[in-house]
Amino acid sequence: MKYTTLDVTLRDGGYKNNFHFPASYIDQHINLMALAGLDWIEVGYRNGSHKLLKDAGDVAYCTNSYLQQLKHVSKNAKISVIGHPQNLEIFDIDALVAEDVGMLRICCSTSTIEKAKTLIKAASDAGLVVCANITRSSQLRLTEMLHLSEQAASAGADVIYIADSNGSMQPDRVSTFVESVMEVTDCFVGFHAHDHLGLAMPNSLAAVEAGATYIDASLNGVGKGAGNLRLESWVSYLSKKGEWNNEIDLILLQLPLLEEVIARGFNRDVWLELILAYYDISFDDRRIFSKNNVGMLHDLRAARRFSDLRT
Amino acid sequence: MKYTTLDVTLRDGGYKNNFHFPASYIDQHINLMALAGLDWIEVGYRNGSHKLLKDAGDVAYCTNSYLQQLKHVSKNAKISVIGHPQNLEIFDIDALVAEDVGMLRICCSTSTIEKAKTLIKAASDAGLVVCANITRSSQLRLTEMLHLSEQAASAGADVIYIADSNGSMQPDRVSTFVESVMEVTDCFVGFHAHDHLGLAMPNSLAAVEAGATYIDASLNGVGKGAGNLRLESWVSYLSKKGEWNNEIDLILLQLPLLEEVIARGFNRDVWLELILAYYDISFDDRRIFSKNNVGMLHDLRAARRFSDLRT
Repeated sequence: MKYTTLDVTLRDGGYKNNFHFPASYIDQHINLMALAGLDWIEVGYRNGSHKLLKDAGDVAYCTNSYLQQLKHVSKNAKISVIGHPQNLEIFDIDALVAEDVGMLRICCSTSTIEKAKTLIKAASDAGLVVCANITRSSQLRLTEMLHLSEQAASAGADVIYIADSNGSMQPDRVSTFVESVMEVTDCFVGFHAHDHLGLAMPNSLAAVEAGATYIDASLNGVGKGAGNLRLESWVSYLSKKGEWNNEIDLILLQLPLLEEVIARGFNRDVWLELILAYYDISFDDRRIFSKNNVGMLHDLRAARRFSDLRT
Repeated sequence: MKYTTLDVTLRDGGYKNNFHFPASYIDQHINLMALAGLDWIEVGYRNGSHKLLKDAGDVAYCTNSYLQQLKHVSKNAKISVIGHPQNLEIFDIDALVAEDVGMLRICCSTSTIEKAKTLIKAASDAGLVVCANITRSSQLRLTEMLHLSEQAASAGADVIYIADSNGSMQPDRVSTFVESVMEVTDCFVGFHAHDHLGLAMPNSLAAVEAGATYIDASLNGVGKGAGNLRLESWVSYLSKKGEWNNEIDLILLQLPLLEEVIARGFNRDVWLELILAYYDISFDDRRIFSKNNVGMLHDLRAARRFSDLRT
């Protein structure tokens, strides 16, 4: 497909449950997201997040044993790990390779770029797909963004990610950044959105319009602060554009399971309404859905049947 | 300003509490939204919604006495009422005029356009600003949309609203509809979004990009199904573009009050994160906010102070 979608549910969603996901959830998540057609699945931070957190779960550390347990999950899943330069050493890269991790994303900022370059080079030499995630992009001048991008590119990064960590960027600014990074490097460009201003989707659309091809998203938008781009919205958008090969079902089916393992409340309506709208069913026809919440699959089938009958 | 923003919190948000807002809330809402700079404030349905609801509150009916109570609220507020043709008669229009309502929005569909035309003409003759809200736009062919628009325009409508009642429209389709309606009528064009697919903001942006100038939004996005465009997101977007004259404070200050009168749960984080992002403050600096939830005004002041110190 035209775009590479990276699922950050476990990693960024970890901020909602202090990175404590049951092993059974993680297995099923990776399996289902791989089946659903996600290009990459990010399974956590290596050696902690930006600020080290107290009593955080496995997803915050990606120890060798944690990664090893994931090996059996799905041979089809492509696994990504993220890390901050101050938490990473060269031997971490060897460990990731040994545990079949395929992508390393390295957070880059003006203060950490020197260390980041060493890591990017080592990871690239080791055969990993390497993303340089330039964090807090909203606080960077264009020249700073481009300088960081050039350094990451010359060290061997495959993808330069513009990460709107604060959720403060506006669509025009995203376009400018993407276009400019493409002018000064030959890397792919990615965008990591946050939804604080309700702009996760508009900013992601502005990014791909400007030429970005890597997009981060999480189920239900779970993530730091106001969360990320909602994966189910992004995939339904791609699907309507003919840019997604599979049914959206598998992605939706994971939502009730995620609800159970995230500390903060979910709303069943979020996905019921998405199904209604995906099949262009009016509020007045919602009687076709079970009132007893017998499940997502029932809702999906009912919606599809209703939609088929109409056409 | 370039855009006319219409607040539909009471009317569409009424679906979240069966249209039962305390009179004191309604007074304060209208006052504050008028002060905040909203162009129009919609106070409800005249004589019921599309399907008549059981035990619905005042906002679902806009009786003469309800409208009369609003007269004292604010001389600066411009009041809108919406109605379905099957629920409206000519004498309703006289009543609205008598109660200082300035705008009537008439829902139009293929089955109701004949009656709608009579009402549009009468409302226009009576001096009201008249919007023809073409509902369930996602289910219309372009030719149907244009035919309805032409009829509404020739009857005297000032604004043609494309209403994505099902939340099913995609940005490209919104652009096509807006541009085409502008080609066949001299009316202003408006867009009413729903967020079922996470596209309320992208669709509204596509609409104004294509030439629409009227946008509907509600506080917290409260509305039917997955809700509307979030007013606070829309206004913060306009503010960043230099298209909003006032501070965003007044709009945010109403959110905690709305939380109290809507049956479904609100999340304080929704606005806290918006404030953080509006002032481009990182997650790691959120310690500047009160942990004890001493209130929105405190948060706004803390954010502004932090932001001023940085520059």
